[in-house]
Amino acid sequence: MNADFSQGCAFQRGEYVPIAQASIPMTDWGFLRSDATYDVVTVWDGAFFRLDVHLDRFFASCARFRLDPGRSRAEVATILAECVRRSGLRRSYVEMIVTRGQPPWGSRDPRQAVNQFYAFAVPFVWIANEEQRRRGLHVAISDVQRIPPASVDPTAKNYHWNDLTMGLLGALDAGADTVLLRDARDNVVEGPGFNVFALSGRRLVTPREGVLQGVTRRTVIEIARAAGYEVQERDLPIAELLLADEAFITSSGGGVMPVTRVNGQAIAAGLPGRITGELAATYWELHKLPQYSTPVAY
Amino acid sequence: MNADFSQGCAFQRGEYVPIAQASIPMTDWGFLRSDATYDVVTVWDGAFFRLDVHLDRFFASCARFRLDPGRSRAEVATILAECVRRSGLRRSYVEMIVTRGQPPWGSRDPRQAVNQFYAFAVPFVWIANEEQRRRGLHVAISDVQRIPPASVDPTAKNYHWNDLTMGLLGALDAGADTVLLRDARDNVVEGPGFNVFALSGRRLVTPREGVLQGVTRRTVIEIARAAGYEVQERDLPIAELLLADEAFITSSGGGVMPVTRVNGQAIAAGLPGRITGELAATYWELHKLPQYSTPVAY
Repeated sequence: MNADFSQGCAFQRGEYVPIAQASIPMTDWGFLRSDATYDVVTVWDGAFFRLDVHLDRFFASCARFRLDPGRSRAEVATILAECVRRSGLRRSYVEMIVTRGQPPWGSRDPRQAVNQFYAFAVPFVWIANEEQRRRGLHVAISDVQRIPPASVDPTAKNYHWNDLTMGLLGALDAGADTVLLRDARDNVVEGPGFNVFALSGRRLVTPREGVLQGVTRRTVIEIARAAGYEVQERDLPIAELLLADEAFITSSGGGVMPVTRVNGQAIAAGLPGRITGELAATYWELHKLPQYSTPVAY
Repeated sequence: MNADFSQGCAFQRGEYVPIAQASIPMTDWGFLRSDATYDVVTVWDGAFFRLDVHLDRFFASCARFRLDPGRSRAEVATILAECVRRSGLRRSYVEMIVTRGQPPWGSRDPRQAVNQFYAFAVPFVWIANEEQRRRGLHVAISDVQRIPPASVDPTAKNYHWNDLTMGLLGALDAGADTVLLRDARDNVVEGPGFNVFALSGRRLVTPREGVLQGVTRRTVIEIARAAGYEVQERDLPIAELLLADEAFITSSGGGVMPVTRVNGQAIAAGLPGRITGELAATYWELHKLPQYSTPVAY
């Protein structure tokens, strides 16, 4: 066995392959209808962070979209660990996926399809690069509206990202680092792969409707409440975000990351917030707790 | 060369392969972010139908989503014809696709990705089976709302089908043949792969907002106007559809197909409409016109 897994390892059709060889059939409805669900868990310094919570959400997403991974939680966890082990990566972005597959030829009934399970481990993905994390992100709020919950359930992770991608392209063209999408009532909703928080005094606000129930979002809410902050999950008007004392985004891809400019306007003094920094530090400290940590047996 | 293309032929990474071997990389954002566009043209009795119109729309979709097929119209047409020729199929469903590909590792900038072009030809796909086409389709109107144009531009073909899929699952469970989705104001919008029309007297109504600009839809509008019918492209309230004299759906996957029941309620007498039948017959006759027809050199 001399396959090179150092750039990542994928699991497909019962086998482990180097990430560069990983594929899905062109005719899988997971591609042709984006009929799929997924979850991403990270490995930090050799251990999964909050693996149980990610598995809970993954199986809930599968049930919501009537997709069957065909494997137990324990079996999924074993495959994820094996992808990481073969890659040798100590810091890794680990994705688990179920696609619809395809029904027998001529049928258009999703219930007749044989669902497919995939997974892969690749090097850790950062939502923001080092400079952006240090100086704080410059974010543009797009005119594109996030796909509403009445159309696609955002609490079940899905690949319906055209709104996020088109918004991101506009933001990058305008010189911003990334984008936040709005809803039909001019509330901020979420960005490509992250949730958003605004801090005013000792009150944190993060959107409740139309957003992914992010594990980092949840972790930060737990940290903040334990530290005595009030946390409100509710609509976050764009105007309120612009007037916040501090703002930050949360993602498995980097934890808690400061936002210092929105639509070209500085948030407060335009510097990464002190409390944002404290929340970020606590977030990374939690990675060392055994109850949140599942070591990989390399 | 003894590859078996009889089940279909795909073009990928510069090569023609049997459809069963066709794949896209697991890490292509065309899959992981459904960041792709496509078009479908049919071959009927050995000739493409309205190939020019489909190519126009495909290149417009690419421009809208900033995806580059990396090939001229003539080159795309040549690849599509070659897929059909190798398959030997006289009646075929032919799909052309551009995916985002992926940016260099670590980048999240879609502008840095190398877009990928794919195509395939498979046996003709019918939206409705023979029995359904004869007796008329039984359609359920879902509570799921079609993804609105403020989020994803429906005139550029895309794979954001979770709303259609979840609606379809509900409709199939309820014993219907297929589904129509609504908008936020209780208008009928479209179904999975088709547009909808309601006929009252000599007036045809088909939704204008939030729908795919279907080539079959367009062809039927042209046929109907030439035959002296009034055609209105505007909101179609659910209540108006239920009270129509005739109703039908349009799709490249079968042309003009009668709808005889909606939400369990008969449309008029519950039989396929006479004018629907006439429009369907004219639609198929148009396939013989040289100006609409591009023969494949098998």
